Amino acid sequence: MKAIIISIGNEITSGHTLNTNASWLAKELESIGIISDKIVTIRDNVKTLVDEIRAAVKSFDVVLTTGGLGSTSDDVTKLALVKAFKTRLVRDKKVLTEVMNYYKKINRPMAPVNKQQADVPEGFEVIRNSWGTSPCLGFQGEGFLLYSLPGVPYEMKNIMSHEILKRLQRISPKLGIIRSTMKTIGIGESDLFTLIDNSGGIGSPVEIAYLPHLGQVDLRLTSIDKKTTSARARLNAARKKLQKVIRPYYFGDDDESIEMAIGKQLRKKKLTLACAESCTGGLFASIITSVPGSSDYFLEGAITYTNKAKVDRLGVTESTLVEHGAVSAQTASEMARGIQNTSGSDIGISSTGIAGPAGGTKDKPVGLIYISLAMGSEVITSKLNFSMDRVRTQERTAKEMMTILWQALVKIP
Amino acid sequence: MKAIIISIGNEITSGHTLNTNASWLAKELESIGIISDKIVTIRDNVKTLVDEIRAAVKSFDVVLTTGGLGSTSDDVTKLALVKAFKTRLVRDKKVLTEVMNYYKKINRPMAPVNKQQADVPEGFEVIRNSWGTSPCLGFQGEGFLLYSLPGVPYEMKNIMSHEILKRLQRISPKLGIIRSTMKTIGIGESDLFTLIDNSGGIGSPVEIAYLPHLGQVDLRLTSIDKKTTSARARLNAARKKLQKVIRPYYFGDDDESIEMAIGKQLRKKKLTLACAESCTGGLFASIITSVPGSSDYFLEGAITYTNKAKVDRLGVTESTLVEHGAVSAQTASEMARGIQNTSGSDIGISSTGIAGPAGGTKDKPVGLIYISLAMGSEVITSKLNFSMDRVRTQERTAKEMMTILWQALVKIP
Repeated sequence: MKAIIISIGNEITSGHTLNTNASWLAKELESIGIISDKIVTIRDNVKTLVDEIRAAVKSFDVVLTTGGLGSTSDDVTKLALVKAFKTRLVRDKKVLTEVMNYYKKINRPMAPVNKQQADVPEGFEVIRNSWGTSPCLGFQGEGFLLYSLPGVPYEMKNIMSHEILKRLQRISPKLGIIRSTMKTIGIGESDLFTLIDNSGGIGSPVEIAYLPHLGQVDLRLTSIDKKTTSARARLNAARKKLQKVIRPYYFGDDDESIEMAIGKQLRKKKLTLACAESCTGGLFASIITSVPGSSDYFLEGAITYTNKAKVDRLGVTESTLVEHGAVSAQTASEMARGIQNTSGSDIGISSTGIAGPAGGTKDKPVGLIYISLAMGSEVITSKLNFSMDRVRTQERTAKEMMTILWQALVKIP
Repeated sequence: MKAIIISIGNEITSGHTLNTNASWLAKELESIGIISDKIVTIRDNVKTLVDEIRAAVKSFDVVLTTGGLGSTSDDVTKLALVKAFKTRLVRDKKVLTEVMNYYKKINRPMAPVNKQQADVPEGFEVIRNSWGTSPCLGFQGEGFLLYSLPGVPYEMKNIMSHEILKRLQRISPKLGIIRSTMKTIGIGESDLFTLIDNSGGIGSPVEIAYLPHLGQVDLRLTSIDKKTTSARARLNAARKKLQKVIRPYYFGDDDESIEMAIGKQLRKKKLTLACAESCTGGLFASIITSVPGSSDYFLEGAITYTNKAKVDRLGVTESTLVEHGAVSAQTASEMARGIQNTSGSDIGISSTGIAGPAGGTKDKPVGLIYISLAMGSEVITSKLNFSMDRVRTQERTAKEMMTILWQALVKIP
């Protein structure tokens, strides 16, 4: 079963926007056994798109288009669908109501041009875009299925994940491709490679890809076999072998993030968390609270940028700030203890450092970071140094706070 | 003058490798006035490639292919060129010497299969690949120029920069292309389109692309003319006209983010900022503090997840929480006022809402958000409703906080 992805937009053909939509779609198709055979990117031009659609439906089982579905002048997809399938646009009352409700909800007046969002090609399935205003359009023809998706990545992904994949799964063959990602933290890529290599590898025809990203290394395992069952058996054998080797670093699989793994640990061990952030400016808290249900264990955070806030909010002593400075092990430690005490949480964690690009000195260079973890009566402080740009240093520090926290949590029986 | 880029490789069609080569090539072509009209990505298959090449040379002035030039079984480009142009492979002695020298240089034995690198289609220009072993192949036909480049990005870029661009420049129409992005916030794509359309457009042959992303719409302007000077003059005229029309929403150009624009305003007007976040969990603060130098105007943030924290840290009254609930206009307003008072900042901004997925009720559904802005003695509260997933809702809310803040700041004389 073969698919083609047609991406529409001058931004992509000109090279100014990377075609990440097509890559994402190809991987999603592969996960249900449909091979993406061709990706075509064209400019916002009705005639070109008509030609592409006509050619595509002749040679492919699945045709996906992205982009050009809005109601501005560069949106050409609906016009092309109408021409390619010799139909006409009709106003869909349900979509019109949804578009009007959307504007009510976000509390903005609706421009008349938006009514056009409700004009759909006659004979097409209209699939609701719950995160935007342009619905997805589907058409089942002789030997092919076509879906026109919006170009805004999160809208497209939402519709694809919740609606289109289900429809495609009904017609897809059952190919034996099984993938699984094992996620590690607190170990670098080459050390992880050496660790696995020294253990004798996984001893099975399963492919491992090392995917490092900012303080974390994911291991993507791919097992391909004629049957799903045998591919899965091979993958499971490889996973079992790996689990033993990478145990101290392995926190979860696939879509599980380190913040989710931390949430699981806190919930399991009935512990609450609060944080005091200086150089990370709220980033640690925002990642922790991105997890649904985090209000069960996360109590509060203090982003104490000024010295005054460190004193007022956390009870850091003036003498510590004068003697050691705001970026010091002593201040980090008092911050962690301070947020633990004032919030009444079981665990307090803090960050203080120089994210840069300015503010560094010879003794305390840009990238110098202290992280403290207060747990029960203990406070452990780590000193780190990252030489990256401001945002990377903040991200790397927040990841390190999570690493330290997760490693401490798993040690609790 | 129009170009097509044909990218060859299963790893690209499957989505596991992003097609960064095509984007890079498109931008390079644009810089010498050649418009990349289409990008096609296909699998390693001779027949498919032959069809694509035959179709391409009929419709385009410039045809570039990348990938498939090596000497392993999945390298199909030379076979396809031979078929498409009805020629044959001949061994090129100069290339053979170069390949042998290359292996001497890197001090590795040369596998016999590498001799095939020196087999080139008869009648083609052979362009040396000084960073690898597969030479680039060029063909000048009736009304078209074709170049087959290697797929390894640095080899491809090296040959393109030093050899192919020179050749293409000789035939390119010497066009001047100038781009600029104007960024807006607080207005949707279609409303912005209507606004600009109603004003009579930009009255100049400058292309506008609308690039919406989560509460923000960027306008990318492209001006193409025979000379760079006239292209720039046209672009500047369009910008001037647009500036008047979109003024209430226009916050910056190109790489300037809304958080940078807010920083500029705060600095210019000598104002300080503090925030009290509930549903955004520190995201607003983390975005504000991602800007270098933000410690000059950002004092502190309180992430008050629990009611206790709202009372203890911000002075939200128990009676407000009991009567109206934590997610209410009253609580939002007391939070903004509270952080303004306790931090001593000029401006306090707050968020409270139900980010979901759980926690919604009939009266207060998931996605219900209140944002309050305390500035001097005034507090203004906005009610919003987003029905997206947790992270999108948090991101959209943080963006809305920035919109409200920026709009208030620009009004201050």
